[in-house]
Amino acid sequence: MASMAAVLSKTPFLSQPLTKSSSPNSDLPFAAVSFPSKSLRRRGGGGVGSVRAGLIAPDGGKLVELIVEEPKRREKKHEAAELPRVELTAIDLQWMHVLSEGWASPLGGFMRESEFLQTLHFNSLRLDDGSVVNMSVPIVLAIDDEQKALIGDSKRVALVGSDGNPVAILSDIEIYKHPKEERIARTWGTTAPGLPYVEEAITNAGNWLIGGDLEVLEPVKYNDGLDRFRLSPAELRKELEKRNADAVFAFQLRNPVHNGHALLMTDTRRRLLEMGYKNPILLLHPLGGFTKADDVPLDWRMRQHEKVLEDGVLDPETTVVSIFPSPMHYAGPTEVQWHAKARINAGANFYIVGRDPAGMGHPVEKRDLYDADHGKKVLSMAPGLERLNILPFKVAAYDKTQGKMAFFDPSRPQDFMFISGTKMRTLAKNNENPPDGFMCPGGWKVLVDYYESLTPAGNGRLPEVVPV
Amino acid sequence: MASMAAVLSKTPFLSQPLTKSSSPNSDLPFAAVSFPSKSLRRRGGGGVGSVRAGLIAPDGGKLVELIVEEPKRREKKHEAAELPRVELTAIDLQWMHVLSEGWASPLGGFMRESEFLQTLHFNSLRLDDGSVVNMSVPIVLAIDDEQKALIGDSKRVALVGSDGNPVAILSDIEIYKHPKEERIARTWGTTAPGLPYVEEAITNAGNWLIGGDLEVLEPVKYNDGLDRFRLSPAELRKELEKRNADAVFAFQLRNPVHNGHALLMTDTRRRLLEMGYKNPILLLHPLGGFTKADDVPLDWRMRQHEKVLEDGVLDPETTVVSIFPSPMHYAGPTEVQWHAKARINAGANFYIVGRDPAGMGHPVEKRDLYDADHGKKVLSMAPGLERLNILPFKVAAYDKTQGKMAFFDPSRPQDFMFISGTKMRTLAKNNENPPDGFMCPGGWKVLVDYYESLTPAGNGRLPEVVPV
Repeated sequence: MASMAAVLSKTPFLSQPLTKSSSPNSDLPFAAVSFPSKSLRRRGGGGVGSVRAGLIAPDGGKLVELIVEEPKRREKKHEAAELPRVELTAIDLQWMHVLSEGWASPLGGFMRESEFLQTLHFNSLRLDDGSVVNMSVPIVLAIDDEQKALIGDSKRVALVGSDGNPVAILSDIEIYKHPKEERIARTWGTTAPGLPYVEEAITNAGNWLIGGDLEVLEPVKYNDGLDRFRLSPAELRKELEKRNADAVFAFQLRNPVHNGHALLMTDTRRRLLEMGYKNPILLLHPLGGFTKADDVPLDWRMRQHEKVLEDGVLDPETTVVSIFPSPMHYAGPTEVQWHAKARINAGANFYIVGRDPAGMGHPVEKRDLYDADHGKKVLSMAPGLERLNILPFKVAAYDKTQGKMAFFDPSRPQDFMFISGTKMRTLAKNNENPPDGFMCPGGWKVLVDYYESLTPAGNGRLPEVVPV
Repeated sequence: MASMAAVLSKTPFLSQPLTKSSSPNSDLPFAAVSFPSKSLRRRGGGGVGSVRAGLIAPDGGKLVELIVEEPKRREKKHEAAELPRVELTAIDLQWMHVLSEGWASPLGGFMRESEFLQTLHFNSLRLDDGSVVNMSVPIVLAIDDEQKALIGDSKRVALVGSDGNPVAILSDIEIYKHPKEERIARTWGTTAPGLPYVEEAITNAGNWLIGGDLEVLEPVKYNDGLDRFRLSPAELRKELEKRNADAVFAFQLRNPVHNGHALLMTDTRRRLLEMGYKNPILLLHPLGGFTKADDVPLDWRMRQHEKVLEDGVLDPETTVVSIFPSPMHYAGPTEVQWHAKARINAGANFYIVGRDPAGMGHPVEKRDLYDADHGKKVLSMAPGLERLNILPFKVAAYDKTQGKMAFFDPSRPQDFMFISGTKMRTLAKNNENPPDGFMCPGGWKVLVDYYESLTPAGNGRLPEVVPV
């Protein structure tokens, strides 16, 4: 979701599941978003017999992994050395990582035009058998005129990292126009200047897109000490099976975890148990790719998440913490579909969605870019996500009468305090403490340490905290 | 299509059906657009037995007509008189007309938010039974803060015309925010100033949208002498059945018909006969709602179309000329889906699509707003249009060696002359003649008369011809 803490700072909030706008005469009623009933939605064998049957199938039926197998790597590297080269940016590499492990299954490489157009217009792809999978953000590779000329008539190219070494081969390529304005308008619903991903990865990108079938020469590693957290969908599925999960609920985040989140996650598990699941597992799944400058960086977030588990706020026995390698678009209702769809491929059949998921402030106007409720509404209606159980977020706030985070009770609003993202960051920056019970002390210390680490040697001033 | 004549003025053109970008390894091949084979696509009984079975079913299975039946009109008018009132603009009335006759079936009224969001994000609506119908442009009704306040807690409103008389009742209403920027960006793929429909109907519209179930008190009439051409989908179906149509091919247009169009239409009929259809009927279906200022107005276009039939360029026996009451968005690939979908509801199972359908020049930059091929590609992949046979437009141009319009032959481009929309209008404006065989003389005279009618009494100068 947008800054989680920012989410807490504003009315309105949703303490009830979204209900259908009922209309007895309407020809077009739509799916209500609510906690699924046991009888209708329960999947698999409930922990008895084969647990494998309990994990949701990947989109398209089969996880599409695009990493060349060991025996063939040497040969493929030789082939790559002979091909025209396309140098990847850091974000291109993150998308290559995403594709290589099958997060975007059944996508077999950077999008060709037919896939790109379907994503822009329909947020979904129609497969050969007529079935539909969700695919809401374009996963494309831009090249400029010069690169296009270098490729010439070749049907294959080598993708190379910043060190010039080939990391992948793209075959049966298709080069087509990169309609930047249209891509931005249809993905973000605005073309206002200042969208972080657009400025980082689109505005100065080439005027062509190159799609094709991807073969990645080695598993992607970042060597930043966090690779052990980067489980692929296949590895996650294995881990979830090992733990005999009969329900998997995913929580996407890109912010520090506070006790409000923790409450929500433990409450979700409680409700799943009540529904009859024997072993619901939480996939705590921080986003690891590109984020905007004022988000807390991944390494600090991971330290904070580790503390939260160490301090017992979340139960390590029933929680898997892993990094989701995707870059962040901040494209609200469009992007939340991608966040949900990718987690299906990792085995999650429940997805928690909050206010204004993947949202941010409008880059130019003084308002949120997206209606705070559109994300969960769009998610509940999205083509290709019918199999996923959407769990709307209950809003937690600091209950002054209990001295802890609790679900907001609209009947006594005066008892609750909302601690915004800006507020949280300002407190941490100034080495002040939030109210007891807002976040576990170990986790809070990580945040304080992060802001301390930012203090420049020179003027002693910190960068301004930017409200999200 | 965009200005038809403008279409003819530019390369590249498509003289071959669009073919699949074949990729043996791709996981995601997409439907090729090509002339359907007889064996796969032939519908119905081929003219023997019940022809009714031969017409394609409306979206949702049933044509949703929203006009109050005669015995109840009096009572409904009394009810309407008591309700809070929302005054409709001319374009609102055109949409009400569209809805009332079931062109947007199964939509039962102006969109509620769930329908609006599905249209913006997915260009389609999911029905109760899980099936999907296409719906690519929002059919919404905007109100301002004052109107919203007047409505208060009422669950019903009366829609009133410019004379203050109620024309419809909207029931079980839902009022929600009108996210103008997002609506424009997602519908047009740009937010550049100068989009005709946006300037006419969105920029100054209210900040709220009101959706609900529509009941229209009387069939919509314009009393402009053209109502006899305004056949509803039900009336068209009746006419097509009367003619024993076993294939119906729709041709959307908003420009004068020249002999290139006529060639295309007669050639399409010939091909359908070759496929084994016994009685293919052309639905020549000019758009009758809002168009931009430099398009030729409806009444002049209808006179021109009548001449084309009178002059025998098209065969009246196998052609139905009728007016499609929708306003024009000029939203290219998004809008062409609407144009196609509405014709399914009128009984058409073949749809002719050209270069840059519903396109126009970028309002700010010196280029077309849309890639000329995206329209037909998007149409071929659009959810809910799988039942419709898409016929890509073969480009016709003036063949100097034959002295007539002919399909462009890329092997001898020097023999062909392309007469652009701007060129055609400039010739007509100056009372000059196009080459013999470009348009039937009677039709051309209508155009010349139209531009003469524009000559102001005063300065004798005509408005500038704007290239489209």
